Amino acid sequence: MEELDYLAGERKRAEFDVDAMKIVWAGSQHAFDVSDRMSRLVASDPAFRKDNRPMLSRKDLFKNTLRKAAHAWKRIIELRLSEEEATALRHYVDEPAYTDLHWGMFVPAIKGQGTDEQQKKWLPLAYKMQIIGCYAQTELGHGSNVQGLETTATFDPDTDEFIINSPTLTSSKWWPGGLGKASTHAVVYARLIVDGKEHGVHGFIVQLRSLDDHQPLPGITVADIGMKFGNGAYNTMDNGVLSFDHVRIRRDQMLMRVMQVTREGKVVQSNVPRQLVYGTMVYVRKTIVSDASTALSRAACIATRYSAVRRQFGSQNGGPETQVIDYKTQQNRLFPLLASTYAFRFVGEWLSWLYMDVTQRLQAGDFSTLPEAHACTAGLKSVTTSITADGIEECRKLCGGHGYLCSSGLPELFAGYVPACTYEGDNVVLLLQACVARFLMKTVSQLGSGKQPVGTTAYMARVEHLKECRCSAQKAEDWLKPNVILEAFEARSLRMSVACAQKLSKFSNPEDGFAELAAELVEASVAHCQLIIVSKFIEKLQQDIPGEGVKKQLEILCNIYALALLHKHQGDFLSTGSISSKQGSLANDQLRSLYTQVRPNAIALVDAFNYTDHYLGSILGRYDGNVYPKLYEEALKDPLNESVVPDGYREYIRPLLKQQLRSARL
Amino acid sequence: MEELDYLAGERKRAEFDVDAMKIVWAGSQHAFDVSDRMSRLVASDPAFRKDNRPMLSRKDLFKNTLRKAAHAWKRIIELRLSEEEATALRHYVDEPAYTDLHWGMFVPAIKGQGTDEQQKKWLPLAYKMQIIGCYAQTELGHGSNVQGLETTATFDPDTDEFIINSPTLTSSKWWPGGLGKASTHAVVYARLIVDGKEHGVHGFIVQLRSLDDHQPLPGITVADIGMKFGNGAYNTMDNGVLSFDHVRIRRDQMLMRVMQVTREGKVVQSNVPRQLVYGTMVYVRKTIVSDASTALSRAACIATRYSAVRRQFGSQNGGPETQVIDYKTQQNRLFPLLASTYAFRFVGEWLSWLYMDVTQRLQAGDFSTLPEAHACTAGLKSVTTSITADGIEECRKLCGGHGYLCSSGLPELFAGYVPACTYEGDNVVLLLQACVARFLMKTVSQLGSGKQPVGTTAYMARVEHLKECRCSAQKAEDWLKPNVILEAFEARSLRMSVACAQKLSKFSNPEDGFAELAAELVEASVAHCQLIIVSKFIEKLQQDIPGEGVKKQLEILCNIYALALLHKHQGDFLSTGSISSKQGSLANDQLRSLYTQVRPNAIALVDAFNYTDHYLGSILGRYDGNVYPKLYEEALKDPLNESVVPDGYREYIRPLLKQQLRSARL
Ligand SMILES: Cc1cc2nc3c(=O)[nH]c(=O)nc-3n(C[C@H](O)[C@H](O)[C@H](O)COP(=O)(O)OP(=O)(O)OC[C@H]3O[C@@H](n4cnc5c(N)ncnc54)[C@H](O)[C@@H]3O)c2cc1C
Ligand SMILES: Cc1cc2nc3c(=O)[nH]c(=O)nc-3n(C[C@H](O)[C@H](O)[C@H](O)COP(=O)(O)OP(=O)(O)OC[C@H]3O[C@@H](n4cnc5c(N)ncnc54)[C@H](O)[C@@H]3O)c2cc1C
Ligand SMILES: [Ca+2]
Repeated sequence: MEELDYLAGERKRAEFDVDAMKIVWAGSQHAFDVSDRMSRLVASDPAFRKDNRPMLSRKDLFKNTLRKAAHAWKRIIELRLSEEEATALRHYVDEPAYTDLHWGMFVPAIKGQGTDEQQKKWLPLAYKMQIIGCYAQTELGHGSNVQGLETTATFDPDTDEFIINSPTLTSSKWWPGGLGKASTHAVVYARLIVDGKEHGVHGFIVQLRSLDDHQPLPGITVADIGMKFGNGAYNTMDNGVLSFDHVRIRRDQMLMRVMQVTREGKVVQSNVPRQLVYGTMVYVRKTIVSDASTALSRAACIATRYSAVRRQFGSQNGGPETQVIDYKTQQNRLFPLLASTYAFRFVGEWLSWLYMDVTQRLQAGDFSTLPEAHACTAGLKSVTTSITADGIEECRKLCGGHGYLCSSGLPELFAGYVPACTYEGDNVVLLLQACVARFLMKTVSQLGSGKQPVGTTAYMARVEHLKECRCSAQKAEDWLKPNVILEAFEARSLRMSVACAQKLSKFSNPEDGFAELAAELVEASVAHCQLIIVSKFIEKLQQDIPGEGVKKQLEILCNIYALALLHKHQGDFLSTGSISSKQGSLANDQLRSLYTQVRPNAIALVDAFNYTDHYLGSILGRYDGNVYPKLYEEALKDPLNESVVPDGYREYIRPLLKQQLRSARL
Repeated sequence: MEELDYLAGERKRAEFDVDAMKIVWAGSQHAFDVSDRMSRLVASDPAFRKDNRPMLSRKDLFKNTLRKAAHAWKRIIELRLSEEEATALRHYVDEPAYTDLHWGMFVPAIKGQGTDEQQKKWLPLAYKMQIIGCYAQTELGHGSNVQGLETTATFDPDTDEFIINSPTLTSSKWWPGGLGKASTHAVVYARLIVDGKEHGVHGFIVQLRSLDDHQPLPGITVADIGMKFGNGAYNTMDNGVLSFDHVRIRRDQMLMRVMQVTREGKVVQSNVPRQLVYGTMVYVRKTIVSDASTALSRAACIATRYSAVRRQFGSQNGGPETQVIDYKTQQNRLFPLLASTYAFRFVGEWLSWLYMDVTQRLQAGDFSTLPEAHACTAGLKSVTTSITADGIEECRKLCGGHGYLCSSGLPELFAGYVPACTYEGDNVVLLLQACVARFLMKTVSQLGSGKQPVGTTAYMARVEHLKECRCSAQKAEDWLKPNVILEAFEARSLRMSVACAQKLSKFSNPEDGFAELAAELVEASVAHCQLIIVSKFIEKLQQDIPGEGVKKQLEILCNIYALALLHKHQGDFLSTGSISSKQGSLANDQLRSLYTQVRPNAIALVDAFNYTDHYLGSILGRYDGNVYPKLYEEALKDPLNESVVPDGYREYIRPLLKQQLRSARL
């Protein structure tokens, strides 16, 4: 029997080897195999069904998540999955759960901040899930400003304990995922107070609930913080609120890798450098960048497939109408997002390399590259998550009215994704205060001082050239040359940073200048991060990439990514004189023709993500394109359709129609 | 007893008369009175409580909406409210309901397309709600392309009836609000077939359900299309699916104002011109523009108040931290949105005038201004709804993590608002195909032919000047001059349109050119629409505006609106040579200083919207700024907090912790 495939025609048009592209997307044959196996395992197990999520009440939704998490863990054990496989399996279950924080934040915090002894004690418990942990940093009153946290941890030398306390309402922990209902333990961040003196914010392992009956321990008040954006989405997670009424923990529950409190109440800095913490941040944020690529690719896959299915206008002589993917406006909104998914993929890959590099250097006592690595991961986290959040919503709009249905999968994808712009550092704060802008200004100020800029800022060493150079593009095709693109992005970024630095230098107090020019500094930081993404895409293409036509497609996508950015930020490029307006116009002409080249490959390029229909969770994005009958089927499942005459008719509709409202009880 | 007001200090800083500004915002003293009275009426009636919406299941949510709609109608009758008051009351109930479509689409369709006789028959029934109607145009397969609708209405001369039929799955009506469960009648759009010949798409009044027991009539299948984006939000609405199996209706149920089918089966064009339909469109879209201003103002109100409450970083010597509204990046994201709410308000006001003008002209048989009015309302609908949708989400992000909670009100506001970008014309289709771009290209092509451009395109008559002129700004303050701003926007818009026209002229087939250049045409259309908004704001300020300091504040907002746009679209202004990059930089300097001027007035400017806490529906946006304790209270109401140990612990958490997973049934 032939399988139904309304997109078969589209698939035949592809000019490259899709299977080879799948390997490129996954990162390696091995990564592809794991991901392929795990996604099928999840998709074929009815216990992981997720299409009913939007219909469940909060309580049922949460209980269902607990069930899935336990089932996933059971499968992981039964099948003796490796860590890599287990991570992939949890990923494809595709439902935010307390286990994300347990594995993604609690365990790494202990690994990163715990002494060897502490790791030996706690990690095995965590690995076997004999305890469930979360990461309790943010409070009701403080998120971005970690140094402003109010929870206290006061050392009591009499009992050799810390007293964890929440002195105010706003000091309640607020937001930690997994905290509300599931966690038995938390890494709690609190101000360390020893002998009346403050020693900054540190992490403490605190048991929250009894391991016998899950009741909160004395002095601990814990609850869920309530509904969040969207149906399903992040409401599967028990983000929690937590306050302490003088809760006592043993001294050895302070994470003491970088700072110790001794039995005698001495505060001792260990010889492990504080910068180590940055290493963990680089790790977490590199994961967020890959996740951005994944989330955006799901949305782009849905919008691309549906745009090939959907026809509207343009029927000639009674023939079929035009596929909306053939409209240039649709292409102009969709293809740059498709290109971005690949761009983010490759910059994410590069970040994995960077993390390894940083780790090795740290072990060798070399901290020189850390500030640059830290700034660049923070910036890339900010830029990729912002584009992804907006991009998912754009993909939803690209699906017209039907994108608004939960069954399109896009609303839940969006609602579940957007907090990535806020957690692990608010995107604006990251660009501005935390690192990027400050790092760039420092780098610029040191140019000419003999100190060579490193890593992703290395181009700034060519400051004299980049300040003066003129873009050489004379015809549209010149914009296909990697060097032309790269130089334009470098010139724009450098000139924006230099302009900021010059303006800053006019302030007598640099902090005043920094505050006043904040918006411009953010723009300069974005320009720098975009350059990084473009340059890593270009570097990727200098590698050997097997598979017929694969490299060619990636080149097209790379050019689309760069030229669409160039058009969107044309104001930057023109105002810095990095290109002329004629050149901007040529770039745009080239962009249009690239759209035409990518068009026949669009479906195959999203097929290369290798997503199961289960994972995509979208009727509009179904592999087979069989959209309309399935939309219909799905609609009929709504509980509201259990009866044709709705509940409430007798009380609230009939009295209106019969003009008997006055006497009705409402 | 003193009332709590954490924002009292902010309110004292205002440099203008807030009460006078309230009148300006409302449009008149009378409009203010009505709106103030109705919003209080709703807020004080516990029957209209809405904070529990996100927690309700779909069925309960819908039943609750039916209850509120009936209660509202009861109050309207009891209090003998005028039409204006009733509309305001329904607005402040703030819950999408079938009544929106009944009053907003069904009644106007009959008024606009029905003959006098038909109006006499149907309108009284509708006015008394003895029937409930909806507007059934869109089908599963066709939304934007109305001419592609598949439902048929075939005239049967034997019985003097039309046979309404759904020949395919994709011909099912799909999306109409109120259709799924509440409506007894619909205006159904279908292809008219008489004697085997097609006569285009027309409206028919079709009864869907029995007035006795609400059961669908024979041949009619109707249901709800299922969950949509967000908690609460549009899920209160029964958007429906409907198909017809040869349903017979009387001939006089075709809406026959512009075209008639006689007893003999003759199709007769009436002497009422078809353009009349555009009049209705102008009406509906002007309402959407005002609604955009309202929705954005709610978001801006929440984000502004919370930004004054929220403090993060910058504490000096243990003093309070900085209010986040004082950060320039926060201002740079927030204040242009605040300015946009006012800008959209005034352009909405102007559209009301335009609608009146068009209506009067139509009655006098003058159709000359109709195409321009139609293009401009379509364009303004598109531009204002897009900015509003993005703007609400930006306001949510401006609230950091807490904006992600349903109790912030922002998620529901967003999810409920975004379809405005899609319904009543997809925003891209409106700019491109439907009207704006085509109208602009036509106008440009006729320049110099002696035909004077009218209305909002009048500036194009100065084509020679605008092609050549150079912006005169030499210092930052020059950007405060209305003429400088206006000319820059006119030059940019004209030059973009002219450039498109020139490119178009190179195509031998204009339609090919139009398709190829679609993205640029959309950009030119946006530029034209932004000019309209800026110019109407400036015109408003030329009027007498009473109240101390009121005009001054509006001038600041007008300048912020224009200069923020100029910065955002700097690429357009520079590439067309409408300003120099030096001038762009001066404009940006001016913008920063305008932020400083508006800052002390920010809270008062959102107070001027006069929103009750009920209507705002946001803990972050509370009038009194008492955010933290209320967030806490709200969280504890979540059903998940009914027990401290969650449902599911025994089955799904305990077995993990106790390592008894193998034997557990999951
Ligand atoms: C879904 C979700 C899950 C989370 N999970 C966890 C978790 O597991 N554990 C945990 O500890 N926390 C968690 N958080 C909390 C999260 O880390 C914080 O919300 C985040 O750090 C932002 O801080 P904030 O909410 O205080 O924002 P705020 O800092 O209050 O931001 C408000 C506004 O002020 C601006 N702003 C703030 N400071 C500055 C400045 N100096 N300059 C310019 N602008 C500024 C911001 O840009 C923003 O627009 C989670 C949050 C969410 C939404
Ligand atoms: C909440 C909601 C309420 C609604 N209420 C009603 C109602 O009461 N009654 C009713 O009849 N309908 C209603 N609708 C339907 C609504 O009017 C349609 O969804 C809308 O007209 C868009 O049409 P579409 O969904 O077919 O989008 P499509 O036309 O399928 O759009 C898909 C994509 O194709 C693009 N596209 C389409 N044509 C072109 C073109 N020619 N050139 C370039 N790009 C193109 C669009 O820009 C979009 O990106 C409602 C919809 C929603 C979401
Ligand atoms: Ca956006």
